[in-house]
Amino acid sequence: MNRFQKDETICALITPPGAGAVGVIRISGSKAIAIVDAVFESAKSGFRLSEAKTQTVHFGKIMDGSAVLDEVLVTVFRAPHSYTGEDVAEISCHGSAYIRQRLLEMLQSKGAVMAKPGEFTLRAFLNGKLDLSQAEAVADIIAAENKSSLQAAMQQMRGGYSGEIKTLREELIRFAALIELELDFGEEDVEFADRNELKSNVETLLTRVRKLLKSFELGNILKNGIPVVIAGKPNVGKSTLLNTLINEERAIVSDIAGTTRDTIEEEFNINGIRFRFIDTAGIRATDDTIESIGVERTLQKVSEAAVILYLFDPRETTAASLKHELDELKSKLNLKDKSAADSHLILIANKSDLFDEAMIEKEYASFPSLVLISAKRKTHLEQLKEKLLAVSGIDKINLQESLVTNARHAQSLKSAEEALHKVLAGLDAGISNDLIASDIRYAISQLGEITGQVSSDTLLEFIFSKFCIGK
Amino acid sequence: MNRFQKDETICALITPPGAGAVGVIRISGSKAIAIVDAVFESAKSGFRLSEAKTQTVHFGKIMDGSAVLDEVLVTVFRAPHSYTGEDVAEISCHGSAYIRQRLLEMLQSKGAVMAKPGEFTLRAFLNGKLDLSQAEAVADIIAAENKSSLQAAMQQMRGGYSGEIKTLREELIRFAALIELELDFGEEDVEFADRNELKSNVETLLTRVRKLLKSFELGNILKNGIPVVIAGKPNVGKSTLLNTLINEERAIVSDIAGTTRDTIEEEFNINGIRFRFIDTAGIRATDDTIESIGVERTLQKVSEAAVILYLFDPRETTAASLKHELDELKSKLNLKDKSAADSHLILIANKSDLFDEAMIEKEYASFPSLVLISAKRKTHLEQLKEKLLAVSGIDKINLQESLVTNARHAQSLKSAEEALHKVLAGLDAGISNDLIASDIRYAISQLGEITGQVSSDTLLEFIFSKFCIGK
Repeated sequence: MNRFQKDETICALITPPGAGAVGVIRISGSKAIAIVDAVFESAKSGFRLSEAKTQTVHFGKIMDGSAVLDEVLVTVFRAPHSYTGEDVAEISCHGSAYIRQRLLEMLQSKGAVMAKPGEFTLRAFLNGKLDLSQAEAVADIIAAENKSSLQAAMQQMRGGYSGEIKTLREELIRFAALIELELDFGEEDVEFADRNELKSNVETLLTRVRKLLKSFELGNILKNGIPVVIAGKPNVGKSTLLNTLINEERAIVSDIAGTTRDTIEEEFNINGIRFRFIDTAGIRATDDTIESIGVERTLQKVSEAAVILYLFDPRETTAASLKHELDELKSKLNLKDKSAADSHLILIANKSDLFDEAMIEKEYASFPSLVLISAKRKTHLEQLKEKLLAVSGIDKINLQESLVTNARHAQSLKSAEEALHKVLAGLDAGISNDLIASDIRYAISQLGEITGQVSSDTLLEFIFSKFCIGK
Repeated sequence: MNRFQKDETICALITPPGAGAVGVIRISGSKAIAIVDAVFESAKSGFRLSEAKTQTVHFGKIMDGSAVLDEVLVTVFRAPHSYTGEDVAEISCHGSAYIRQRLLEMLQSKGAVMAKPGEFTLRAFLNGKLDLSQAEAVADIIAAENKSSLQAAMQQMRGGYSGEIKTLREELIRFAALIELELDFGEEDVEFADRNELKSNVETLLTRVRKLLKSFELGNILKNGIPVVIAGKPNVGKSTLLNTLINEERAIVSDIAGTTRDTIEEEFNINGIRFRFIDTAGIRATDDTIESIGVERTLQKVSEAAVILYLFDPRETTAASLKHELDELKSKLNLKDKSAADSHLILIANKSDLFDEAMIEKEYASFPSLVLISAKRKTHLEQLKEKLLAVSGIDKINLQESLVTNARHAQSLKSAEEALHKVLAGLDAGISNDLIASDIRYAISQLGEITGQVSSDTLLEFIFSKFCIGK
């Protein structure tokens, strides 16, 4: 329980810790302004921060005993007009590691304690400034590296599907109340809730839960990147294509100061959508029977890819042999629906600059989603990118819509879906009211966990410990 | 000249670029507030930043077309109440690399240009908010890693010796005016300046310039660390002592989030003063005639050290043999004043836990600055640290006093000193007024370059290009 006490005043550096012109330290809690006042000497003689109005900025010195530690700006936010909903002071100091460290020490000596990871946002949640799903979106916003994942997170922070979840939950609470009322009158065999109406209502709710759950498929892809596989026989130019696609991206990424990511070699953006290559080094060993386990794993990954780029060299293929290659690949893929492979596939005739393009197009006219490129000469890449957006289905999506991107929320929705499904089955089978009420209650608590209307310390601990310090 | 145009509105990230909860982007210039207004939508309906009072904070959204890029706080500073002295807006956004980058792109599309390194501080200088020496101190403050270097930089930023330099310069200007007046009346042989009074005044000035110049020795040491050498025969425990001193420090340094410094292995702090080990790996090869050049270089470094820690093992030494060792070392050192070595030296009887300390103290009573320690058991280290502060002379210094820490300033003071010295010699030799006037003018311009009262584009380019972007 200790983690969730709000009586302490907390402080932390909220800007990144490296070298920069400015660093910002946030202090939040009932003593925040008094603690800063104890080390701050305003440039306006005699002025105390205790007199400061909310959202005003004050220039002055931080005094370390008789020495000046730094000249700073202090911004005062008075409860509830702050991020946490508490009194907050933010000190903008010079970006020296020593100043930051010393200032945090001084604030602690005056009574503040260091904030734990996510503690500012936790307080914002506990003070009702954000619901739990909005609080979680804050971490996603900070981690956002492209337009689409940012927009999904921003939607969520700005309310997103919280409202819908709350409405669904309230309707379930109403049903539960009716059924529980019947339980109270159990002996008298009254029916406050019309069973047919109840069933139809639960069906409607279920449809809405399933729609949200469905959006997670896309939300997850937007957050983590659309999985793409490059397949094809050896020497058709897979590596060249990979490098071409990545290098275009790298030029963009390197513009973003401080973006250092280990996995950058395996990703690229198209229109702000992240595509992520799945490593299929093993596919080249398809003929090697010894490494069949590795190949199987690779084929599994290909099956999971949202897009399969299948490269071939038109000089060494005919329409017939290509069809054979593809049939062989599809037969190996662990697909529920074999025909689905076609909708994920983009066929790429590489090295097409060495040929008459009209001839290639004629030869392979029977294949869907054919693109002629030269990975080496970087021709027709725009066409390939359009195809990637179309095949991944992302071009049809309205990014302004709310998407479930959080795996925890998806899990809760899944549990709620199962419970509601049981309710329907129970209504059909005419099982007892108390079992139906129990399933509805379970669905209610699962939906409540998404927005934090139902929350346990364990859940909050789980969510906020993944935040960075200072948020 | 392009660099110093102030008609453009500039923008840059002023917080470090890594991962953190919050990032701050500063926009400065006549269009700063209008540019931010063009992408900002206040949470208070209908409110425009153009109505905002100086030093107030406003919550709202940054709109990227119809999409919300981020929810932010915008702080408005109206000229001259800002760092640069111009209209300034600072946007606190979420610490996502994508948001930062996109926001900077959007500000540029509305007419801002990216700030060059040091450009905010350059504008503060050009707008008279800081003199040049104060502006340079800003970079030193950001780089400060310990108490003493911070205090020296803070003194400089808060005015420091700027006032004294300005006074010295004004006095010289008065002298120059008198002498040049005589030149105007050249034919008439009038003397507006009494030569004896002039000489005595220049002598006084020279003393003050030399005092400032002298403070550079200490200022430089505070800024760059006090050079320390650990010397002694093989196996007396040099490495153990080095590790012991460094490890105590490392515990402190690791508390400072984000302090990543390559050279940390070779430094330690005592009372906020930085001591810096000079690598003397070569000293162990003293007997190896082949590597004599390396040894010579090492001995040179030892000569330059402010403190020489000379370790010996009392089990393998007598007072006589130790005297011999030291005499040999001193004879090899390239010292102007051989006796000076003693005042830099701290003799350390290591492994003293293995002996009767009273006996050791008796045996080596004739040596100055003897400390008995056990590097391994970490005994008497406090005593060693006190000696280090005493021998380096740092314990006698008032850190509140202004010190010259900037090599450029020291160079200008040196040039001014030489010019004033020529003036004195010229007065003694009775050389012509125009030569004396020329030397005085030169001293005036040198002092003026420190505070920026005299500055060229080349000088400003030199100074501000070393700043980081965002300062």
